[in-house]
Amino acid sequence: MKNKQWQLAKRPFGEATSDTWLYAETDVPELKDGELLIKIQYISLDPAMRGWLNDAKSYIEPVQIGAVMRAGTVGKVVASKNENFAEGDYVCGHQGVQEYAVTDGKMLHKVDPKLAPLSYYLGVLGMPGMTGYFGLLKTGEPKAGETIVVSGAAGAVGGLVGQIAKIKGCRVVGIAGGAAKCQFLINELGFDAAIDYKSQNVKKALKDACPKGVDVYFDNVGGDILDAVLTQINMKARIVICGAISQYNNTTPVKGPSNYLSLLVNRAKMEGIVVFDNIAEYPIAMKDIAGWIHSGEIKVKDHVVVGIEKFPDTLMMLFKGENLGKLVLKVGDE
Amino acid sequence: MKNKQWQLAKRPFGEATSDTWLYAETDVPELKDGELLIKIQYISLDPAMRGWLNDAKSYIEPVQIGAVMRAGTVGKVVASKNENFAEGDYVCGHQGVQEYAVTDGKMLHKVDPKLAPLSYYLGVLGMPGMTGYFGLLKTGEPKAGETIVVSGAAGAVGGLVGQIAKIKGCRVVGIAGGAAKCQFLINELGFDAAIDYKSQNVKKALKDACPKGVDVYFDNVGGDILDAVLTQINMKARIVICGAISQYNNTTPVKGPSNYLSLLVNRAKMEGIVVFDNIAEYPIAMKDIAGWIHSGEIKVKDHVVVGIEKFPDTLMMLFKGENLGKLVLKVGDE
Repeated sequence: MKNKQWQLAKRPFGEATSDTWLYAETDVPELKDGELLIKIQYISLDPAMRGWLNDAKSYIEPVQIGAVMRAGTVGKVVASKNENFAEGDYVCGHQGVQEYAVTDGKMLHKVDPKLAPLSYYLGVLGMPGMTGYFGLLKTGEPKAGETIVVSGAAGAVGGLVGQIAKIKGCRVVGIAGGAAKCQFLINELGFDAAIDYKSQNVKKALKDACPKGVDVYFDNVGGDILDAVLTQINMKARIVICGAISQYNNTTPVKGPSNYLSLLVNRAKMEGIVVFDNIAEYPIAMKDIAGWIHSGEIKVKDHVVVGIEKFPDTLMMLFKGENLGKLVLKVGDE
Repeated sequence: MKNKQWQLAKRPFGEATSDTWLYAETDVPELKDGELLIKIQYISLDPAMRGWLNDAKSYIEPVQIGAVMRAGTVGKVVASKNENFAEGDYVCGHQGVQEYAVTDGKMLHKVDPKLAPLSYYLGVLGMPGMTGYFGLLKTGEPKAGETIVVSGAAGAVGGLVGQIAKIKGCRVVGIAGGAAKCQFLINELGFDAAIDYKSQNVKKALKDACPKGVDVYFDNVGGDILDAVLTQINMKARIVICGAISQYNNTTPVKGPSNYLSLLVNRAKMEGIVVFDNIAEYPIAMKDIAGWIHSGEIKVKDHVVVGIEKFPDTLMMLFKGENLGKLVLKVGDE
């Protein structure tokens, strides 16, 4: 039996290009005692993956040259010599960009395809969901009546952040690229306002959309948009630094926020988050989010691309802003 | 009776220059009921004064063109038609860069020259003292055994921050310009280490001076030094944004911290402070600081320049890094 996989061939300088990746067909190894074989069905594509390609100290080890590219996955157990998993179980983990994975099961958890579509376990019930939930509620600490702004608002994390903030009674303004995304935020997700950074002056649009100023800013993008929001923050504002997708493919130094002294004038704070710190509380978040999906308060949008061979181009959609909702790669037909 | 005063003639672009200021000799007005006349003895010179010259929204109104330059002052009541103040009282307030001031006394408080030298009420027992005390303890939250780094360490705020952190059981590293200041930090103030940013590679020197990383960074300077410290912070580090003296005379945009994504990797926060938020608690801080001075745990260094006519050049000493300790202008002989 052959396995299809994408390996890291070369660390990119700037954007990942065709020579970043190596497509390989390898043999699926025989199972040893304690191992199981997973047929992966969905692969998660996330902005954070770009950071994992850099040979730099970060919150997680870089992917090694020659290794299968790291990615969150959900799939089905097709063979097992591990007493904790049986054939037919569905499992979620970080099995990487490949069709089959052999693992000892230590970093896996079972998921139930009857409770939610499998792809949700990579999105709203997975890492992006946990990121948005804990980043907003624990670090942003939104209060009813406050104004929250979220960038990358049509993405997996941003869309959830805005919807949770609505549930908490906030005025919610999303920043995204293009009219279609902005309409989606307002018409589908129930945001109060949306700013199209590609066609609008973000600072001016923020003034209009946030007449009472900005209390919480959940930042997925960094760069000029972070600087624009810094000009509009209120006293004691909280800025959640979740990511900086505008800067991940830089070949020049990251653009630091020139307006950071607004933190001083406004006694505001800017705080970084990493989702893994909240592992012990994931069950609480999953229960809340599942409940909101069930009640219709949270709508889920997945952007599915079919075919593992499309991985390199599909990953780039994130950085080009071409995905609407959570981007996943569907491996095969099943 | 004539008053000597420095008025704001023109908003500076970049550094304040000779045409920024107008020296005037004006008549001291007659006292009306409820007013008192103060003969100012010491004028406080602080980096924040540069910000007050800009016509921009900030935590305090800009100084108006033609007005006496705002400054903290301490002086003696020489005439009073106000029942709360008597001739001979010593008073502290913001009476500006002038020899005499007439006021209704609403924003004044009395000080006791027997408890501390008068100039201390502008420094360690005044605004810089309160800034360092609350900024470090409430926002930096240092714990015994942690490493704290402070920039502008030989200045009024920085010197106090480092000494309080020593009292709290921290390893304290100061960043200052020049060998004399660095020796002062170690030999006089008891810092564990000092980094001379003018002659050393700050990032490399931080690695050596902070073998366990940086838990709290109290930033008075911004710019490249903030960026260097960001590369050395620990998990859950706290960065207190007190000022950015390296950026105040910029004619180009403020340099934002390129390494701010270290906040994300390290789940760290950067928070701005303004001293006035703690007014209700000033008495607690003054009691603590006075106690530490009395016990010898805190040493006070004032840098006194005599002669109100020297105001423009003396203010520039702050931005050139020429002061060692709290910079004050002594008005006259008394």
